[in-house]
Amino acid sequence: MRRIIVGVIGPASDREVEAVRNARELGRLIAEQNWVLLTGGRNCGVMDAANEGARQANGLTVGILPGSDQSSMSSSVDIPIVTGMGQARNNINVLSSDILIACGLGAGTASEIALAIKARKTVILLSIDDDSATFFQQLGPSHVHIAETPATAVDLARKLLGV
Amino acid sequence: MRRIIVGVIGPASDREVEAVRNARELGRLIAEQNWVLLTGGRNCGVMDAANEGARQANGLTVGILPGSDQSSMSSSVDIPIVTGMGQARNNINVLSSDILIACGLGAGTASEIALAIKARKTVILLSIDDDSATFFQQLGPSHVHIAETPATAVDLARKLLGV
Amino acid sequence: MRRIIVGVIGPASDREVEAVRNARELGRLIAEQNWVLLTGGRNCGVMDAANEGARQANGLTVGILPGSDQSSMSSSVDIPIVTGMGQARNNINVLSSDILIACGLGAGTASEIALAIKARKTVILLSIDDDSATFFQQLGPSHVHIAETPATAVDLARKLLGV
Amino acid sequence: MRRIIVGVIGPASDREVEAVRNARELGRLIAEQNWVLLTGGRNCGVMDAANEGARQANGLTVGILPGSDQSSMSSSVDIPIVTGMGQARNNINVLSSDILIACGLGAGTASEIALAIKARKTVILLSIDDDSATFFQQLGPSHVHIAETPATAVDLARKLLGV
Repeated sequence: MRRIIVGVIGPASDREVEAVRNARELGRLIAEQNWVLLTGGRNCGVMDAANEGARQANGLTVGILPGSDQSSMSSSVDIPIVTGMGQARNNINVLSSDILIACGLGAGTASEIALAIKARKTVILLSIDDDSATFFQQLGPSHVHIAETPATAVDLARKLLGV
Repeated sequence: MRRIIVGVIGPASDREVEAVRNARELGRLIAEQNWVLLTGGRNCGVMDAANEGARQANGLTVGILPGSDQSSMSSSVDIPIVTGMGQARNNINVLSSDILIACGLGAGTASEIALAIKARKTVILLSIDDDSATFFQQLGPSHVHIAETPATAVDLARKLLGV
Repeated sequence: MRRIIVGVIGPASDREVEAVRNARELGRLIAEQNWVLLTGGRNCGVMDAANEGARQANGLTVGILPGSDQSSMSSSVDIPIVTGMGQARNNINVLSSDILIACGLGAGTASEIALAIKARKTVILLSIDDDSATFFQQLGPSHVHIAETPATAVDLARKLLGV
Repeated sequence: MRRIIVGVIGPASDREVEAVRNARELGRLIAEQNWVLLTGGRNCGVMDAANEGARQANGLTVGILPGSDQSSMSSSVDIPIVTGMGQARNNINVLSSDILIACGLGAGTASEIALAIKARKTVILLSIDDDSATFFQQLGPSHVHIAETPATAVDLARKLLGV
């Protein structure tokens, strides 16, 4: 059965403490909804934390890896998709997600939010500063939403997905 | 838990009767091994049949779609990966599969077998004429194997994967 | 001889009057430097205008097309690179440019500026509002520069390229 | 002015002496036609030799690089297109060429010939053994031609392009 796929995107750095903590919680909540978690698949930062959270809740996780093999893959990814195309894989993250939650912000994340707006996908922003959120809302007024906590982000995703 | 992913590749045409029938059987057998089935995800030919076979055996199916949305997706795909990159996605099929089974032969399939040899992946050929099989065996002597039936292809895959 | 390649990125809309006018001027100035102009190659907005400007100054133009053929190509592109990969081609625009000039801002442009920062490429912003410019400068402090006119953008590019 | 682009594809190995010698001659002849030479851009085998031949005849050369920077680029490439997408770039080689000449055969080359057939592009085979040539002619009967020498390959290309 065609599964609902929710993408969680965010910085690869483990130093983004709040974003990483929220990503773990997002992973757990997404798994509890029986949605598939999709991330960039690497073993660091928001990607790794979201996968760990989903794993702990027995969720199913898909990692869209930038490299040409499984090195540097999060150990909590169930289904690694090996693209070998570096950051060009960001567009696959976007197109493959029914909805995206951006948790924290790095340059890669920013490219994904912009690509999502371009592809008319919906993005929920979490743990992103006000000025950056305003930037993205002006870039894609009808596609960008803001949430304050992982729980409200997932609630909002459920409403926007109509499920 | 990191799942084993087996790619089934083959012509998109429904007129390849033997290949389509074998693909359905391959899908079923792969699901029974508890492996994830990976295909090009479209609603025709070998891709569709393999997904249907896996679905009927309660398997998990991943479709790596060439288009930029889910139109023309097999209705038996659980996890659509939307690449939007046309035939360049063939390399993702190859890199993401732990092993590949080519079931019948079209131009797209031939590109995937060649890309698999280039990436040093193992490919098992099924429902492919002798001259074509010889061509690929000469192209990648240590990477290309031949099977006579879906059952022997899956047995061979199990041995080659060491599981 | 390895040519210097300068990417000009910007909105596809012809309604961005200032950006389009500046793009045409940029194309002309880039051609006069004997640099190769690289754009997204389409027949609209900043892409088309930059190519027209370069063509009028007898420059050489490369268009990295998102589609799978040459339909919707700017008639001023000399060398069309047909990627067939949609917006994932934005990363190729970035990686292939020695330096980028963003002229105006759309969602695709924003993705390219972010990808450029990610790839540690230098981007000069022109015809972009102050808040957006601030956003990108915070995203990539050492990679993002601002210019007021096409002429100062090209002067700055020359300095940054060290040529 | 939109330039004619001829792709030369072939093995990366310098040990393919005949293919490498023919590639150098092809590069020269393509440049003399005032066509743009497109290759995979690397500094080895058929790619490098074709670029050298074109350079010596003052031709214009485009290299579609698999890596994410210009390392391992042929020093005879004028316009490097940096894709960062590994062998998935083979589809760009195919889509961007008005016609392709395969000079010798490796696994990557085979993937490109197959992708060309899939994309309904014309391919001329040179320095490829009879059995392999027969394989490709059966795969794409109306798209694959055979030439005996670089000169006849270029003559044939001119006829097929109608120029």
